[in-house]
Amino acid sequence: MTFSIDIRPIVFVIGLLLVGIATFMMIPAIVEAVMVDTTPTEFLFAAATTGFFGFLLILANRDDRAFSLDTKQAFLLTASCWIILPVFAALPLLGMGLNEEAGLSFTDAVFETVSGITTTGSTVMTGLDDMLPGILLWRSLLNWIGGVGIVVMAIILLPFLRIGGMQLFRAESSDKSEKVVPKSAELVKWITSVYLGLTFLCALAYYMTGMSGFDAINHAMSTLATGGYSTHDASFGHFGAGSQWIGSVFMLAGAFPFIAFIKFAQGRPRALIDDPQIQAFIKFLAVVIFFSALMLQADRGWDFFDALRIAAFNIISIVTTTGFASTDYTTWGTGAVAGFFILTFMGGCAGSTSGAIKIYRFQVLWITLREQLIRLNSPNRVVVMRYHGARMAPDLPISVLAFLAAFFASIAIFTLLLAMMDIDFVTALSASATAITNVGPGFGDIIGPSGNFSALPDGAKWLLCLAMLLGRLEVFTLLMLFDPQFWRE
Amino acid sequence: MTFSIDIRPIVFVIGLLLVGIATFMMIPAIVEAVMVDTTPTEFLFAAATTGFFGFLLILANRDDRAFSLDTKQAFLLTASCWIILPVFAALPLLGMGLNEEAGLSFTDAVFETVSGITTTGSTVMTGLDDMLPGILLWRSLLNWIGGVGIVVMAIILLPFLRIGGMQLFRAESSDKSEKVVPKSAELVKWITSVYLGLTFLCALAYYMTGMSGFDAINHAMSTLATGGYSTHDASFGHFGAGSQWIGSVFMLAGAFPFIAFIKFAQGRPRALIDDPQIQAFIKFLAVVIFFSALMLQADRGWDFFDALRIAAFNIISIVTTTGFASTDYTTWGTGAVAGFFILTFMGGCAGSTSGAIKIYRFQVLWITLREQLIRLNSPNRVVVMRYHGARMAPDLPISVLAFLAAFFASIAIFTLLLAMMDIDFVTALSASATAITNVGPGFGDIIGPSGNFSALPDGAKWLLCLAMLLGRLEVFTLLMLFDPQFWRE
Repeated sequence: MTFSIDIRPIVFVIGLLLVGIATFMMIPAIVEAVMVDTTPTEFLFAAATTGFFGFLLILANRDDRAFSLDTKQAFLLTASCWIILPVFAALPLLGMGLNEEAGLSFTDAVFETVSGITTTGSTVMTGLDDMLPGILLWRSLLNWIGGVGIVVMAIILLPFLRIGGMQLFRAESSDKSEKVVPKSAELVKWITSVYLGLTFLCALAYYMTGMSGFDAINHAMSTLATGGYSTHDASFGHFGAGSQWIGSVFMLAGAFPFIAFIKFAQGRPRALIDDPQIQAFIKFLAVVIFFSALMLQADRGWDFFDALRIAAFNIISIVTTTGFASTDYTTWGTGAVAGFFILTFMGGCAGSTSGAIKIYRFQVLWITLREQLIRLNSPNRVVVMRYHGARMAPDLPISVLAFLAAFFASIAIFTLLLAMMDIDFVTALSASATAITNVGPGFGDIIGPSGNFSALPDGAKWLLCLAMLLGRLEVFTLLMLFDPQFWRE
Repeated sequence: MTFSIDIRPIVFVIGLLLVGIATFMMIPAIVEAVMVDTTPTEFLFAAATTGFFGFLLILANRDDRAFSLDTKQAFLLTASCWIILPVFAALPLLGMGLNEEAGLSFTDAVFETVSGITTTGSTVMTGLDDMLPGILLWRSLLNWIGGVGIVVMAIILLPFLRIGGMQLFRAESSDKSEKVVPKSAELVKWITSVYLGLTFLCALAYYMTGMSGFDAINHAMSTLATGGYSTHDASFGHFGAGSQWIGSVFMLAGAFPFIAFIKFAQGRPRALIDDPQIQAFIKFLAVVIFFSALMLQADRGWDFFDALRIAAFNIISIVTTTGFASTDYTTWGTGAVAGFFILTFMGGCAGSTSGAIKIYRFQVLWITLREQLIRLNSPNRVVVMRYHGARMAPDLPISVLAFLAAFFASIAIFTLLLAMMDIDFVTALSASATAITNVGPGFGDIIGPSGNFSALPDGAKWLLCLAMLLGRLEVFTLLMLFDPQFWRE
């Protein structure tokens, strides 16, 4: 088979990213050296290996021509980055140079890294409270890097590639320009600044509610990324009411469309209020949280404002696909289990760090459903479908249909494969769902909110790695590579 | 609020149907009188009541003008029939005139009848082996009447109403005629003849494999209807291998598009082989059954042909939405539970007696997915979506999207409502799914294949009645009535 795709620029960019990752590894290395006064060999070995491969790829694929990518190269680069980076990012977790028991197995290390970079937040690690600070910081950094990666991808690349109905956001981000690279550099700068600024604000707020500086920084990173890694086994159960409210606010911020923040920062104060996704998102959450709090008050006799805080934190955590828990909500009763399972599929806004189906797709579904009822009622009436006032392209509902078909088919296939490994139905179904939606916790005794993925067999962990990547890449970015047509002329 | 719909012809037709149902009630009355030499008071009371109301409605709404229905009237009539008939058809199950303990509660009786008429086959009754023969026959008759009802509705009405993508079958059934009534009478005759013929053949085949005449007739009716009511608590576990093979064949026949049988009967021998739904259906089942049999042989050490028979019977039973069981397949392991749960959503062909999503919608999804991949690969290429060689109307995938959105939203809502009644997650989810897909058995200890719906609270039974009707009416036929626009001018 001959490739019709020039992979040199792709390999070159991967090389650059590996060098970047190697550089990032020095942050936990330094922090660990300072905080526990030891030589952070696990990071030094990992950084050296990653940096070496990175430089090799850069040197072998340098090219003096102007850098540009066509559509196929953009697909291949995106998918490759998300597959290759976790493998190298897993190296520090192997515990090289530390004592025998310190490191994870290769399977566990890759699972933890894929979960981190895809901002899923499922973990195989326990005893976080006694973990080396570098390792904890590295996990939070993985969330954080994955978070900014997905925002850049969702704002710049996916609308251009027309993935899963994201073409709806083309005009907004790129002003219908067909080229990816021009103007992107400036957009990346804006995204990074907003992301850094929000992370800083969040860390400051956490610190002011009583978190240690280390905890505040770590949780700020995994909050904005809607990732969900914590530095404590008890997750947000470790912290007080104030930190939980701050967490709720900044998880929401992480699930808002970053384009709205950028417009806001550029001096359009109504950008956040006028955004159709944010409006629907807030309305939905307000209703669900309010009624859940009422039910918790009635069922469990809690003070209403405690009930409101606990409902808000845990519901926002699942809907934004973060996956922090302040308590084991599966003990609230059968209704809560079903409710949280359904909320797993929601997701935040497009162009944010959150995963799952996402608000705009539900809006497209709602518009389609309304249109269908009108058409059934008045078969001869011409109905124009509009999103936020603008006429919806006819291919949009079809893209959404294709996305949902691939999304649910993936969940079904992964559930079946996991169940065939002797994993019980609830664990298999919820593991598959929580991985593809990048939420984090599942249901049942094993992988529930107070459980852990370490007990699953290795085969299941690799399957879930694939599921997390598939979800993070909106299914089609990865599916494309399995289409033989992609590789032909 | 003023109605813009003339409901007189609708009430008139309902009156006719009630008289028809009253007449049908005389069949089990006579059979019971002959078989157990008793006065079948439960049927006589029920027939008298139903017939009385029927005549009242007919007399009050007679009209000398030519009978015709517009679209809205067709919607309202269809939905009303499926809601009102079960209430009257439930009367014999109340056991009027028998001893105190003989009858069901009103809730149980309506649940059993809705389950029967929607060809779901979920039951609240136990001790079937000692039940009065009239009651057993009435349950089978409910399946059978519901089955022919749904075929008539699916071939004549739904394509005309453009429900859920059924417009794909407009040309086939009505030759693009815009009127419902002309030609329908002849089509109804053909459908009824084919249905009767197949039922007769099935009963004969069952009888020849060793069933009693009574069992053969009852099971033939619930097989062709893909209903699933049995005359024994052990369902097909009561019968031998031969009967199970015959059952597999005729469940398949019930899930084939009846238009293909009619064409076949009209002298087009290739009609069954050339049908695109039948082709895909058979291919899918062959693969799933073959590999399941291999796995059963390996896991459980069964003879391959036994494994093939058991796999074929139980898989065909779920996929055709019949719901007979020859054994408790949930004891086959976690993979089987997940597999059967996923198969619950499949369904047979459109224009058959089966429910759920159905083959042609999966074909539309597959075509959409292929088209999406081509479009992502070559953004500037114009792609024409074709179904079985014919260009697909652009509104077709949108109708399918609207259907799936309403279908899965319904499952989510019913799951949540059931779980809020303290029903565990697996029971709530599988009850909701098996009701909306009209399959029959669920999962878990309570409603699994060897369980029973009687233990559920009354509220849950009423919810499931609504779910069964919603599924049977392809969601939109019922949803339409909740659209305020429907009732306005």
